[in-house]
Amino acid sequence: MKHRKPRVGIIMGDPAGIGPEITVKAIATPEVKDSCLPIVIGDQRVVQQAMTFIRHPIPLQVIRDLSREPIDCQKMNVLDTGNVDPQRLTMGQASALGGRVVFEDIQLAVRLAQRKQIDGIVAGPHNKYSVNLAGVSFAGYPPLIARLTGSRYAFNMLVSGSIRIVGATLHLALKDVSQALSPDLVLATIEAVQVALHRLGIHQPRIAVAGLNPHCSEEGLFGSEEETIIRPAVASAQKKGIQVSGPFPADSLFVGIKVQQDFDAYVAMYHDQSHIPIKTVAFDSIVGLIIGTPLVVATVGHGTAFEIAGKGLANIRPMSETLKLVACSCGGITPEGLLS
Amino acid sequence: MKHRKPRVGIIMGDPAGIGPEITVKAIATPEVKDSCLPIVIGDQRVVQQAMTFIRHPIPLQVIRDLSREPIDCQKMNVLDTGNVDPQRLTMGQASALGGRVVFEDIQLAVRLAQRKQIDGIVAGPHNKYSVNLAGVSFAGYPPLIARLTGSRYAFNMLVSGSIRIVGATLHLALKDVSQALSPDLVLATIEAVQVALHRLGIHQPRIAVAGLNPHCSEEGLFGSEEETIIRPAVASAQKKGIQVSGPFPADSLFVGIKVQQDFDAYVAMYHDQSHIPIKTVAFDSIVGLIIGTPLVVATVGHGTAFEIAGKGLANIRPMSETLKLVACSCGGITPEGLLS
Repeated sequence: MKHRKPRVGIIMGDPAGIGPEITVKAIATPEVKDSCLPIVIGDQRVVQQAMTFIRHPIPLQVIRDLSREPIDCQKMNVLDTGNVDPQRLTMGQASALGGRVVFEDIQLAVRLAQRKQIDGIVAGPHNKYSVNLAGVSFAGYPPLIARLTGSRYAFNMLVSGSIRIVGATLHLALKDVSQALSPDLVLATIEAVQVALHRLGIHQPRIAVAGLNPHCSEEGLFGSEEETIIRPAVASAQKKGIQVSGPFPADSLFVGIKVQQDFDAYVAMYHDQSHIPIKTVAFDSIVGLIIGTPLVVATVGHGTAFEIAGKGLANIRPMSETLKLVACSCGGITPEGLLS
Repeated sequence: MKHRKPRVGIIMGDPAGIGPEITVKAIATPEVKDSCLPIVIGDQRVVQQAMTFIRHPIPLQVIRDLSREPIDCQKMNVLDTGNVDPQRLTMGQASALGGRVVFEDIQLAVRLAQRKQIDGIVAGPHNKYSVNLAGVSFAGYPPLIARLTGSRYAFNMLVSGSIRIVGATLHLALKDVSQALSPDLVLATIEAVQVALHRLGIHQPRIAVAGLNPHCSEEGLFGSEEETIIRPAVASAQKKGIQVSGPFPADSLFVGIKVQQDFDAYVAMYHDQSHIPIKTVAFDSIVGLIIGTPLVVATVGHGTAFEIAGKGLANIRPMSETLKLVACSCGGITPEGLLS
């Protein structure tokens, strides 16, 4: 079956990090070119500089208006933001400029996606210090995407091949997790997962939900959230026709996931419960798919790696996987084309 | 170097589960016979019945007084408790009798260890329903061992080969974990790990401590326990000469542990933080080493498996690993003799 190639907008993240390098390198690979039409949303001077890292140069094509100009996938297409002169940056160093660029670029990408000029967004790595120096109100991509799209929630689903785990909560003190959970929030997480899996081409997804407490609290011995929050949310989701089960004790839910998954996705209750199992088995290939909003957005699962920025040493696999996952979510390739 | 073979007392756990079968089968293996002198502490009739599962029968030797009688490692040595007639049990079913036997046997084993008649204890799987039916005050082995030995704390260190993870807290509602943690408790956990690693023959152990909150709370952004509880405990342990570091963000601490561990042991803060990483990579070979008390005690990392009890289908690997780990902790074999 031939798919229409989706247009994927890529913001490079902090221009002083490895973002520009991995963006340009990944776009130049046949597997990415085959899966989508990549368009860099960023400063063309940054792209130009990063292109020194690719062995076989591709002509750079500056796009002014995505709604009118055709996209030639043999070129390095850039929607020029003109917002950062690389001469004013030191590679590998946090800066207010680098932080501000991330914030500006993602907002532009969201606007373009809302206007259907691109089908999905890939966001390169940002640096917290740069963002702090810029003084902008940016606490990571998921809450910003939620706000810009008027969505009540956005969740960060970690994806590595066919392993997919999302937390109902994310950056929260552990002691505050119980208070933050509600049947509504857990149900919203399950529904967001269901939509995301459909977009990925999984038509009858099976979803598992983890408990909060050890052994799911052993019938109330230690905790009650399984009964008061999680089980009602699972029941509501089932009533809506979602194939979801749980809560399951979290420590046995992820046994053997590296080799085989019993479910298409797992809903965890908090940050470490979602991050520990996937990072323990698949550190270098994790994509963050931001779900729960109308847009398809994904982030590379790593940071700016300032220590190797500008040296041509960055591993492009996470960026390639992120691009392909967004392409798949937009119908560009089938799930079989993803890392297995 | 030739080691003296330690005497390891084995309680079979619930007699209606797979405990008797795996005990007898494991004792009959050369690797276990080479590492220790195993002595079953239980009813000889249960042992006799379980011996039908071994291909090459070994003579059963009933021991009356461990302090006087020699142990012949070519025999199946049993310190007969005479406390359960297998005719009164249905295999695979929870019963008050089965629960009471577990409780009685572990107490006898602890007394024998305290009198130095055995060097270490291996405890077979118990069943919570049986224990409840028996109406005895038994909330698992660790708190009972702590109480019987007058120890303030006992911790359950999960061990699979060279992966070792222990939680400072165990069976506790997640929302209560923060409140239960204290510098004293975390320090006690680290010290218990240090002693346990020394017993295992690791002379300069390196210990890592996990944070409680996502990303160790990012300097107070979400939570403060890293600064108020964990860091002071690590500093106190370092002052005592322990090679310990942390707190580290828990989601990246366990990356790649299946292949290689950067530390000899990891201290986690709560149940799922300790159980998820090790169970995700090593489900079928986990031993629970109960540390923090003067005794060497370990439990098999699985339950009674009632569904296959009495059928000869049980996997003996967890029991063999548990026996060898206790033998190693008692100086019977070197760590190289353990599963790697």
